[in-house]
Amino acid sequence: MNPSAEIVNIFQEENNFLILTHSAPDGDAIGSSLALKFFLEKMNKKAEFFAEIPIPLQYRFLPGINSIKDIKEISLDNFNVLILIDCNKIERVSKKKEILEKIKHFSGKKIVIDHHIPDEKDNNGLIKWIEPKKAVTGILIYDLIKYMNGVISEEVAFNLYTAIIVDTGNFQFDNTTDEVFQVATELVKAGAKPSYIYQQCFNSWEENRLRLFIRMLNNLEILDSLAISYLSKSDFQDTNTTESATETFVEFLRVLKDINLTVLLREIESDFIKVSLRSKGNIDVRVIAREFGGGGHENAAGYRIKGSLKYAKDELIEKLKKYNLL
Amino acid sequence: MNPSAEIVNIFQEENNFLILTHSAPDGDAIGSSLALKFFLEKMNKKAEFFAEIPIPLQYRFLPGINSIKDIKEISLDNFNVLILIDCNKIERVSKKKEILEKIKHFSGKKIVIDHHIPDEKDNNGLIKWIEPKKAVTGILIYDLIKYMNGVISEEVAFNLYTAIIVDTGNFQFDNTTDEVFQVATELVKAGAKPSYIYQQCFNSWEENRLRLFIRMLNNLEILDSLAISYLSKSDFQDTNTTESATETFVEFLRVLKDINLTVLLREIESDFIKVSLRSKGNIDVRVIAREFGGGGHENAAGYRIKGSLKYAKDELIEKLKKYNLL
Repeated sequence: MNPSAEIVNIFQEENNFLILTHSAPDGDAIGSSLALKFFLEKMNKKAEFFAEIPIPLQYRFLPGINSIKDIKEISLDNFNVLILIDCNKIERVSKKKEILEKIKHFSGKKIVIDHHIPDEKDNNGLIKWIEPKKAVTGILIYDLIKYMNGVISEEVAFNLYTAIIVDTGNFQFDNTTDEVFQVATELVKAGAKPSYIYQQCFNSWEENRLRLFIRMLNNLEILDSLAISYLSKSDFQDTNTTESATETFVEFLRVLKDINLTVLLREIESDFIKVSLRSKGNIDVRVIAREFGGGGHENAAGYRIKGSLKYAKDELIEKLKKYNLL
Repeated sequence: MNPSAEIVNIFQEENNFLILTHSAPDGDAIGSSLALKFFLEKMNKKAEFFAEIPIPLQYRFLPGINSIKDIKEISLDNFNVLILIDCNKIERVSKKKEILEKIKHFSGKKIVIDHHIPDEKDNNGLIKWIEPKKAVTGILIYDLIKYMNGVISEEVAFNLYTAIIVDTGNFQFDNTTDEVFQVATELVKAGAKPSYIYQQCFNSWEENRLRLFIRMLNNLEILDSLAISYLSKSDFQDTNTTESATETFVEFLRVLKDINLTVLLREIESDFIKVSLRSKGNIDVRVIAREFGGGGHENAAGYRIKGSLKYAKDELIEKLKKYNLL
């Protein structure tokens, strides 16, 4: 599918774009946003990208990374258009009420470019381009640039290639379609360096990240076809890490042969747990995430829950049993 | 590059093909050979593939895997053409002299399809199609089929996709070019299932293998740019594993950012230690391995040493210091 005429029109006519993405931005969120920023600037538009700082270490190599502004210092002045990338609700941009309040008062046009299944009820004047069948939001940005006869510059190629490998687990998840490979082909032709980008995204762990990873493995429990682990507040404190260090941890557990469901619970604040679920094949973990007010994709979903790690685990196991997933 | 007219002519004219590959066949060797066999059979030719049995567990899912015949029972009768896949010397086919002697007496045409740098001196009447710049021998098979206007069947697609991901480390090594992605695109269109094939090749660890892996991580020590770990005899016993379970373990340690040397010591018998060394960039670990009577490549080498784990580690560290690697 191509972007709607309305969206293309806005990109053609308007000149000042404010790009936002979800809280705890990953490679797709950052890469897609930066690629769009480069594209808009190439069209001689003004574009600023505000996100949660600091950006995870593994993405610091991305072209344009130093242009990202701290979401805490967001100002809406001088922007005509707000673009939400890789999420479809303003509420996903930040956990800070004062930031959300500010953004909600934005009176210009608001565009959404995303591949997550949207919450039907919520529209709030957002002009949405959402394609849940696309593996990566970065592919929508690629499609947009091609549709508007733009050039895939090397900067865009590096950013979109990163978006792709982060959201497909470097071409290993179920969402790895022929389209993903087709776009990757074009991005490599445009200058993306697969081996270098892989090393940056996946093989540049600090030692403390590995120490946290070891703790996750030591906390691992296997229950039938479920592999479940947790990281407590003290695991983070002892290793001097934050939640952002856990990206890809839950995916690693898929290395196990007879496991269809992997879960990682993280105590990101005292008695506040973030839960990530991953599944293989047609096991839908989104239904579980929704039970707790979360969301995501069929094979990759998540949610947050108040309470202890034990409480979060017990509640989850109850729901997994309810859906016959355990 | 395309296959020579001579090679294409042989595939068109001849009818009985004997396919062989190197000893200890990997995913490229097996996938390329099986894909070629399917292609020839589609052309109503007779083709048999002889290889070392048993085929590694992770490749047992491949279409055609049960048609592979044991190299020990090789007979050259009834074949007009011998095809060497993914190697360019008859000597690479087997470590058994009697098998090599038999093959050397083959009097028909002999074709080589490979991407390894050949030994110049050796020709022996082989009709060679060797392209060292190609990432994967499977891509040569793909090119051959396309050049001969053949169809990429689903069986061929599964086999060639496997060849690609095994030889590029699932699109992470330096050899991952736009051509690799282009071929992957076509293979997925023809029916290859990326996620399923990835799972089979890389994510089919038994739980006890993971338990052993956790022990390696718990035993890990970081000394400057060296990451060194060990597995004792009791680590193997307690997890009910053998040394073969440690394949890819030492490579995992490359995940660390500032590490350019990774080492795994394994006590495979009491007081008998097997040592694997891996390095990044131009750090030559082969010189270290040679000091202990071992060998290998510049970035991947190994040796065996009598003594305790502590003794093996102390000796290694002394040698690393001698070569200014620590």
